[in-house]
Amino acid sequence: MFRNQYDNDASTWSPQGCIFQVDYASEAVKQGTAVVGLKSKTHVVLVAVKRSPSELASYQKKIIRIDDHMGIAVAGLTSDARVLSNYLRTEAMRSKMVYGRALPVGRAVSAIGDKAQTNTQEYGRRPYGVGLLVIGHDDTGPHLYEFSPSGIVSEYYGYSIGARSQSARTNLERNFERFEELSLQELVVQGLRALRDTMPQGKQLDSMNTSIGFVGMDTKMTILDGDGTQPYLDQLDEAEAMDTE
Amino acid sequence: MFRNQYDNDASTWSPQGCIFQVDYASEAVKQGTAVVGLKSKTHVVLVAVKRSPSELASYQKKIIRIDDHMGIAVAGLTSDARVLSNYLRTEAMRSKMVYGRALPVGRAVSAIGDKAQTNTQEYGRRPYGVGLLVIGHDDTGPHLYEFSPSGIVSEYYGYSIGARSQSARTNLERNFERFEELSLQELVVQGLRALRDTMPQGKQLDSMNTSIGFVGMDTKMTILDGDGTQPYLDQLDEAEAMDTE
Amino acid sequence: MFRNQYDNDASTWSPQGCIFQVDYASEAVKQGTAVVGLKSKTHVVLVAVKRSPSELASYQKKIIRIDDHMGIAVAGLTSDARVLSNYLRTEAMRSKMVYGRALPVGRAVSAIGDKAQTNTQEYGRRPYGVGLLVIGHDDTGPHLYEFSPSGIVSEYYGYSIGARSQSARTNLERNFERFEELSLQELVVQGLRALRDTMPQGKQLDSMNTSIGFVGMDTKMTILDGDGTQPYLDQLDEAEAMDTE
Amino acid sequence: MFRNQYDNDASTWSPQGCIFQVDYASEAVKQGTAVVGLKSKTHVVLVAVKRSPSELASYQKKIIRIDDHMGIAVAGLTSDARVLSNYLRTEAMRSKMVYGRALPVGRAVSAIGDKAQTNTQEYGRRPYGVGLLVIGHDDTGPHLYEFSPSGIVSEYYGYSIGARSQSARTNLERNFERFEELSLQELVVQGLRALRDTMPQGKQLDSMNTSIGFVGMDTKMTILDGDGTQPYLDQLDEAEAMDTE
Amino acid sequence: MFRNQYDNDASTWSPQGCIFQVDYASEAVKQGTAVVGLKSKTHVVLVAVKRSPSELASYQKKIIRIDDHMGIAVAGLTSDARVLSNYLRTEAMRSKMVYGRALPVGRAVSAIGDKAQTNTQEYGRRPYGVGLLVIGHDDTGPHLYEFSPSGIVSEYYGYSIGARSQSARTNLERNFERFEELSLQELVVQGLRALRDTMPQGKQLDSMNTSIGFVGMDTKMTILDGDGTQPYLDQLDEAEAMDTE
Amino acid sequence: MFRNQYDNDASTWSPQGCIFQVDYASEAVKQGTAVVGLKSKTHVVLVAVKRSPSELASYQKKIIRIDDHMGIAVAGLTSDARVLSNYLRTEAMRSKMVYGRALPVGRAVSAIGDKAQTNTQEYGRRPYGVGLLVIGHDDTGPHLYEFSPSGIVSEYYGYSIGARSQSARTNLERNFERFEELSLQELVVQGLRALRDTMPQGKQLDSMNTSIGFVGMDTKMTILDGDGTQPYLDQLDEAEAMDTE
Amino acid sequence: MFRNQYDNDASTWSPQGCIFQVDYASEAVKQGTAVVGLKSKTHVVLVAVKRSPSELASYQKKIIRIDDHMGIAVAGLTSDARVLSNYLRTEAMRSKMVYGRALPVGRAVSAIGDKAQTNTQEYGRRPYGVGLLVIGHDDTGPHLYEFSPSGIVSEYYGYSIGARSQSARTNLERNFERFEELSLQELVVQGLRALRDTMPQGKQLDSMNTSIGFVGMDTKMTILDGDGTQPYLDQLDEAEAMDTE
Repeated sequence: MFRNQYDNDASTWSPQGCIFQVDYASEAVKQGTAVVGLKSKTHVVLVAVKRSPSELASYQKKIIRIDDHMGIAVAGLTSDARVLSNYLRTEAMRSKMVYGRALPVGRAVSAIGDKAQTNTQEYGRRPYGVGLLVIGHDDTGPHLYEFSPSGIVSEYYGYSIGARSQSARTNLERNFERFEELSLQELVVQGLRALRDTMPQGKQLDSMNTSIGFVGMDTKMTILDGDGTQPYLDQLDEAEAMDTE
Repeated sequence: MFRNQYDNDASTWSPQGCIFQVDYASEAVKQGTAVVGLKSKTHVVLVAVKRSPSELASYQKKIIRIDDHMGIAVAGLTSDARVLSNYLRTEAMRSKMVYGRALPVGRAVSAIGDKAQTNTQEYGRRPYGVGLLVIGHDDTGPHLYEFSPSGIVSEYYGYSIGARSQSARTNLERNFERFEELSLQELVVQGLRALRDTMPQGKQLDSMNTSIGFVGMDTKMTILDGDGTQPYLDQLDEAEAMDTE
Repeated sequence: MFRNQYDNDASTWSPQGCIFQVDYASEAVKQGTAVVGLKSKTHVVLVAVKRSPSELASYQKKIIRIDDHMGIAVAGLTSDARVLSNYLRTEAMRSKMVYGRALPVGRAVSAIGDKAQTNTQEYGRRPYGVGLLVIGHDDTGPHLYEFSPSGIVSEYYGYSIGARSQSARTNLERNFERFEELSLQELVVQGLRALRDTMPQGKQLDSMNTSIGFVGMDTKMTILDGDGTQPYLDQLDEAEAMDTE
Repeated sequence: MFRNQYDNDASTWSPQGCIFQVDYASEAVKQGTAVVGLKSKTHVVLVAVKRSPSELASYQKKIIRIDDHMGIAVAGLTSDARVLSNYLRTEAMRSKMVYGRALPVGRAVSAIGDKAQTNTQEYGRRPYGVGLLVIGHDDTGPHLYEFSPSGIVSEYYGYSIGARSQSARTNLERNFERFEELSLQELVVQGLRALRDTMPQGKQLDSMNTSIGFVGMDTKMTILDGDGTQPYLDQLDEAEAMDTE
Repeated sequence: MFRNQYDNDASTWSPQGCIFQVDYASEAVKQGTAVVGLKSKTHVVLVAVKRSPSELASYQKKIIRIDDHMGIAVAGLTSDARVLSNYLRTEAMRSKMVYGRALPVGRAVSAIGDKAQTNTQEYGRRPYGVGLLVIGHDDTGPHLYEFSPSGIVSEYYGYSIGARSQSARTNLERNFERFEELSLQELVVQGLRALRDTMPQGKQLDSMNTSIGFVGMDTKMTILDGDGTQPYLDQLDEAEAMDTE
Repeated sequence: MFRNQYDNDASTWSPQGCIFQVDYASEAVKQGTAVVGLKSKTHVVLVAVKRSPSELASYQKKIIRIDDHMGIAVAGLTSDARVLSNYLRTEAMRSKMVYGRALPVGRAVSAIGDKAQTNTQEYGRRPYGVGLLVIGHDDTGPHLYEFSPSGIVSEYYGYSIGARSQSARTNLERNFERFEELSLQELVVQGLRALRDTMPQGKQLDSMNTSIGFVGMDTKMTILDGDGTQPYLDQLDEAEAMDTE
Repeated sequence: MFRNQYDNDASTWSPQGCIFQVDYASEAVKQGTAVVGLKSKTHVVLVAVKRSPSELASYQKKIIRIDDHMGIAVAGLTSDARVLSNYLRTEAMRSKMVYGRALPVGRAVSAIGDKAQTNTQEYGRRPYGVGLLVIGHDDTGPHLYEFSPSGIVSEYYGYSIGARSQSARTNLERNFERFEELSLQELVVQGLRALRDTMPQGKQLDSMNTSIGFVGMDTKMTILDGDGTQPYLDQLDEAEAMDTE
């Protein structure tokens, strides 16, 4: 293949020590709507903006349950996301059947990280074009991880990926020191506030386009859509009101 | 291979995070005649324009039965469509034999989505050049899915793919809020009205070039061609008459 | 490989949604002498012009028996045709041995269509450079299918492929409405008239260069060459005489 | 690979529907010395010009025995010819051991035709650079086939391949109608006359450079070299004398 | 592929006897934060600067435990590092289970060196983009090895890799003759002093960004983060104070 | 790969019907020192010039024993020669063990010819860069074969390959008619005279640089080096003296 | 790949009959420090200059024990050397276990030669970038072989490879006639004198940078480093003194 620009192959280094195909795949992540994750001492929350490809479509699924103790939010190529979520679900099931215990969250993200790393090293495959926020609760408490096309996984207190996620990250950075002590409900509202900052001019979060997921101590992985999200959206407005007082 | 334009290989990302070969394959879908799908609370319907490659040919098959509870309509490369429909049929049969139950519609579309995703990630294969509308009825009611060459599958209330399908989609968007309460017969006629908008200047829907399929509560997957379609086409004209009153 | 023109590989889409290698392979079909197929309610017929590579050669075989109920006529690369006819013969034998019944004609053409589709999707192989007309008679009556290098198979009332086949198709289109009620003998003569239109200036159909095949209700697949074709050729002239009256 | 000229790969079609690598391989056939084959009602004969790579070398083998009822003459790359003749010999032996009968000649040529076809369709291999004339006698009488690099096999009354073979073919065309009734001896002499026309200016056929092979009714495959060919060469001169009378 | 610059493939030599892809992969190592290793007669120590991808993130793990007697520090692509550390851990476990003894440190580094060498010789893979300092204590005492993308492993008294590691190496070279007799605590402090020289202008080592690991005689592999590092950092300042007296 | 010059791949034909990589490999044969072979009615002889890569080196082995009845002389890439001679030895041993008889010489050369042919037809391998003269004695008497990189094997009365071998061939051509009746000793001397013609200006054959091998009726494969060659070299001078009388 | 310069692939011949990638790999050998080997009637010796990648590093290992009767010295890419030495060690162990005897030295070098030859013939791998001097003592006495990236192995009385090895070879050529009768100790000193000629201006051989290895009659493979080399270095100076007298 024609590689004198170093950017056509996931198995070629540029002279600067970069793998350009990985960077390009990351662009696909930015084309997905934003998702936000954040955690307290006891819980971890995902909130996401659902896009509808058309008025005629059901809203896409942005938050996906993996197991009772784990879920993911996706940004990017949804066909790639499906492959990874299926893989995670299989691994989670295997852990229960073979080891009789829930798959530790850190091990889960390492597993998809390794799967993705292979696609950055072997010729003839492309890196996955999807980013994930993985939340889960296990013996070591609540966890929030980011998975990126490079196969790198990092743990966060709060994070956001997808379109205009920088605004959400700025919001989270201003507030993250307070997260640890928040109640689950407060945590969700906090997440929605960050998520709202990713909305384009003139668009609002509402019960149709918002998805909420959480898991934590004594709380199984739960996903709320439609009317289920309204109470939190209402609180968002109240909080807003309070903020602007 | 010569990839400095990023568009020659299904396993290469462009700097903007696109896989051009997937986009190009989607062009093949637009070369097929239009198909329209729409659903009510109880049923889901496909209507399609059949093209005849020549006066001498039988009309091509646009709607294909997969199982008693599922069918598809195709737009694009028919040799690729045959591969996918055979695959779906095999999966449906396997579900019955191994699990003793009809293949859930969502699982069916995920299966072909995953099969198609592989062709967008592995070097040396091309994406499928065909789009599908998949209808089915299972424990969770009637479903309408679109499958595209990218391997992405989306659920819709009503949708159209193929040549000039934008016109049909506009028609569906104007009316889709009424679909839920329609009777099966009304739903078919509604679909034909959207389909009619995809016909080129001076061409009409008639019993030779129209194909109708439906499935739903207490209704096995049924396909109507030729004279079987006439009653619905007649109603289309009546409806028309009413519209223009 | 150098693919910036999209036409060097059967597994590359052009931006317009075409696979050029498939189109190029179709050119090889046009280099073969013409074959014509047509069917009545009860029978289906193939007629073909045999080319001799040299005065010294036996005439090539244009019509090939697959089974008692099925045969093919070929136009294009004969080494490719041999591969496909062997494959069909094996499938037909397998059907008899495994299922105890003749291979349904539609299933036979799907089988070679799928085999050909693979060569249009996998890197490192070329599409077959041969077109086929497949005739057969099974529980659902007589059938005439065209197989093309794309792997697409279409059913026809009458059709022609190969050099100057457009002239034969025009002839068939003028007359096809009458085919249904014709006797086998009339059907053959009708076919020869269409075939005659594909002959270059100054060349005639004669018993040396004409091949006839048919199958139908109570009629096993039969191939006539040499003297066997004379009675039909004689009638052709008579018919001609009548036409010009 | 760089394929924008369509001629570097046996698995690429040109826009005109050609596979150039097959044509180029055919050039290698023309670089071999000529071989001539021809048949009567009862026998089939091969005659060939043997080239010696040097005064010091044994003359190369141009006619090769495959079985009691079959032999070949080769023109082109002798290392490729060895591969194909070994393959034929193995198939002939297998036929005897598995089916208890001599391998039918038509089936033999189809077998090497199929083997060669693969090399014209799969990437990473080149077409064979050798042409064969295959003679044999089986239940259906004597046969003469040409095998070419394309994998195409054709049956002939008489034929010639290799350097300047066009001259021999012209000779055969002038005389072939008489072949059917010739005795074996006359047939050989007839073949030598055609072969003589392929000799370059100032070169003669003699017992050193001429090879003769035949098989037929009640005649096992026989190859004559050196002194064994002299009687026929003598008759050639007599015939010559008669011709010029 | 386009290789006339010799730098696009890990399996191509340049005319000067270089494998450029290996050099480019080494650039990725320099993009990681610095790690320092050094050893006395009895112990071997790693110190590392942890980077946080964001205020919101946990600090990345720079020092990883492999077994009771072995650990590594990483600089470069963390997804590649994960692959190698998993491999080391598996080898260490296998040594215990199969041979009933701890994996000798030299054998461990040879194992990953061989794994990496393969990626520099086989086409279609890229060299690993990560460097490692491997420490361990076995029957032959404490060991410090460097692993580089080339697959070369070298033993050192003290070494540093990663961003601005040259400064740390200069520091180590000035002092390494004293290392042998240092206590574990002194050794750690000595390492921190070298590490400090890699910090960019205006950045300090503190308990949040510093990681310490050690192993040695009667000392299992231990990793200190956060508060655990403070006592050593305090001593660093004292030492500093002493230095500047 | 870039093949528009047809000469970069052993599996690509040029438009003239050549495989350039085979021709280029033959150049490597010409870089080896000359070897000469010749045979009488009863014996066959090899003589060769040994090159020493340096004064410090043992002379390279030019003549290699394969079995009691067979040996080879090599010119070209010695690492390739080792592969082929090992292969021949294995085949010879297998023949004895499986069939209980010495491997016929013709079969032996066909075996390596076939092995080499594969490297001229399959993509991704290069032709062997070595030529061989193979001598042997079996039921059909003494044999001398040349093996070339193309996989072609030819039988000779006398032949020479390697650097300046044309001079030796000229010598052989002048004398070969006398070979048949020579004694073994005379045959060796005759071979040395031809070999001497390949020596560069000012270089002589002597007991250090000359290697002699022979096999024949009642004579096992024998190789003479050093002092063993002196008697023959002495006779060479005598013969010389006689010649110039 | 782009091969119109013939030098990008180990499986491509240049028109001159060269494999450039092999030549380029040989450049890597010249980048290693020099090693010298030489032998007497009873013993064979290796001496080598060890390079230290840094003041902080242990000196690299230049001489490696393979078995009691065999050792190697390496120049070039040390990761490649490790692969080959591991391979040799495995073969040596296998010989003992399977055949109950030490691996003959000639067979050992053939084994790695064959392994290396494969990398010069198969596409997608590069030649090894390392040269070896192999010493050993077996039933046929002491042996010294050179292994090069081409897979060629040659036997020598004395030889040197690596940086500036030409100077050492010149020294050896001046003296090699005396080697045969030297004692082991004299042989080592003789080797050091040759090795000294490879040192750059102003650098000396000393006990830190010199490595000595030997094996022979009644002498197991022995490697001396550090203080163990001093006695020989001292003698070198004495000899020097004597030389200049």
